[in-house]
Amino acid sequence: MTIVVVGSLGLDTIETSAGRVEDVLGGSAAYFALAARHFLPVSLVAVVGTDFPHAAQTMLHHPEIDLEGVARAEGKTFRWEGVYSQDMNSRKTLRTELNVFEQFKPDLPERLRSLRNVFLANIDPVLQLQVLEQLTRPRLVLADTMNFWIQNKREELLKTLRQVRMLLINEEEARELTGEPLTHQAARAILEMGPETVVIKQGEHGAFLQNADTYFACPAFPVESLVDPTGAGDTFAGGFFGSLARMGRLTDLNLRRAVVYGVVLASFTVEGFGVTGLLRVEREEILRRADAIMGMTKFSLDDTARLLR
Amino acid sequence: MTIVVVGSLGLDTIETSAGRVEDVLGGSAAYFALAARHFLPVSLVAVVGTDFPHAAQTMLHHPEIDLEGVARAEGKTFRWEGVYSQDMNSRKTLRTELNVFEQFKPDLPERLRSLRNVFLANIDPVLQLQVLEQLTRPRLVLADTMNFWIQNKREELLKTLRQVRMLLINEEEARELTGEPLTHQAARAILEMGPETVVIKQGEHGAFLQNADTYFACPAFPVESLVDPTGAGDTFAGGFFGSLARMGRLTDLNLRRAVVYGVVLASFTVEGFGVTGLLRVEREEILRRADAIMGMTKFSLDDTARLLR
Repeated sequence: MTIVVVGSLGLDTIETSAGRVEDVLGGSAAYFALAARHFLPVSLVAVVGTDFPHAAQTMLHHPEIDLEGVARAEGKTFRWEGVYSQDMNSRKTLRTELNVFEQFKPDLPERLRSLRNVFLANIDPVLQLQVLEQLTRPRLVLADTMNFWIQNKREELLKTLRQVRMLLINEEEARELTGEPLTHQAARAILEMGPETVVIKQGEHGAFLQNADTYFACPAFPVESLVDPTGAGDTFAGGFFGSLARMGRLTDLNLRRAVVYGVVLASFTVEGFGVTGLLRVEREEILRRADAIMGMTKFSLDDTARLLR
Repeated sequence: MTIVVVGSLGLDTIETSAGRVEDVLGGSAAYFALAARHFLPVSLVAVVGTDFPHAAQTMLHHPEIDLEGVARAEGKTFRWEGVYSQDMNSRKTLRTELNVFEQFKPDLPERLRSLRNVFLANIDPVLQLQVLEQLTRPRLVLADTMNFWIQNKREELLKTLRQVRMLLINEEEARELTGEPLTHQAARAILEMGPETVVIKQGEHGAFLQNADTYFACPAFPVESLVDPTGAGDTFAGGFFGSLARMGRLTDLNLRRAVVYGVVLASFTVEGFGVTGLLRVEREEILRRADAIMGMTKFSLDDTARLLR
């Protein structure tokens, strides 16, 4: 069993109150793969330029990560530069250079077309639709999106939504997409648009999942040191989708666990610049943080009815 | 066993996307008492003007609510007017008329001074200190505060914090008070200031409680209809403190349950203008929503270690 991710690889320049890094490995596919690999092998479909540095490539070298679907095109690699506010709750994009990503036309190698678990990272919904057309027997497709596509490619995005089983979206974008001011009502409105399950990312407040049967809310893991939030959402996607695909059946129990693993993996990413926090993750620490979330959220109501007058 | 609350009673004019109401019963003591009465009798210490309307007073008439400590002073009742943003995540104060509240000097009736459970609502920390001086054997004192006091009476507030067992504060204010950008680190910094337990209100994201032994995060109850967020924090305080005082011992188990009851009671308040949502609460519905929060947050990690490679 393998997961396919179609997304971006890039070089990020990031400034936060913890410091600044230049041209480090970034892109949705990188974060996703480095998280999901803990659960299942991942095949990347992305494009880089001829300048993609060896150091960045090395970070993706891992027995569970297949880079054969990463095209190397003539030109420069996608670049992004951003600066975060002091509290890291917002960021400003200083520069976006699409470069070779501008001509990206996802063309899945034949052997990937029949794979069943696919993550459509935050790319143009037109490209997401092109990927969907290439899949011969998709079982579990998760899509991500962002405000840019909601504003500029709404019709295409709605078409994607009718064809995917799950949507991952952050809460402001869920409100923008649906016009519903309450996030959980925005989630329900999204279920009317096609996906059978929606997962709402809430940053430092965690995430919640909603479908016809389940409403599950999970807080974020309280990290000791917030260094760089870049890629937290894509890492969440990797932990969530990786563990869910690994578990197989989309039961209430498994969906909840998958959200917990998403939150746990994301907590590592924000502890370092770029993918560095994620690279040093160990299996035992993943299990420890998942247990910690259990400890942070459990309670008992036994014998409390008597409290009420 | 009785709880004492020292806070405000007032007449609020509120505009939200759901409508507008004028001069309705408001004030921290009103919301707190109407929530806490479900668990224990509540004695109010507050002041109103001679114009305090009969209709407002009637809303507080309840066998479990003692109004003997409410002074009626010559002059007009405290008034506040505010308008909420479309999504109700922020509000603008249009008018604050302190009126008789400006001269409020809390003077506890003798029989209230020996009571053991006291909520110091969001009032001038100088007044909070005056109340503390009047208490002869306080056991559990919870204080609330706001940005105005953090900015303008910091020293007095820090003095209050050294003398209370618990602080209730919203997340922006916790960051402002401590200078810590991460909310859970702000919570820990507050523990250094005196309180042994801090509860952070996160609005539509719920609340979390932190002390030396417990970190408990609880999501908000997803209401069907958000009408007016005014008083949600004071209602949370009433549900939290009322149930905690009723349970007695400050164990990890009880603190968690108290947060859940706080979140549940607050969910009723936001469903109606002013206190109307809170007035119609029934015991069975409180229990039902507490169970629903359990259902929204529970998960199992049994047998998941095998998922990780």
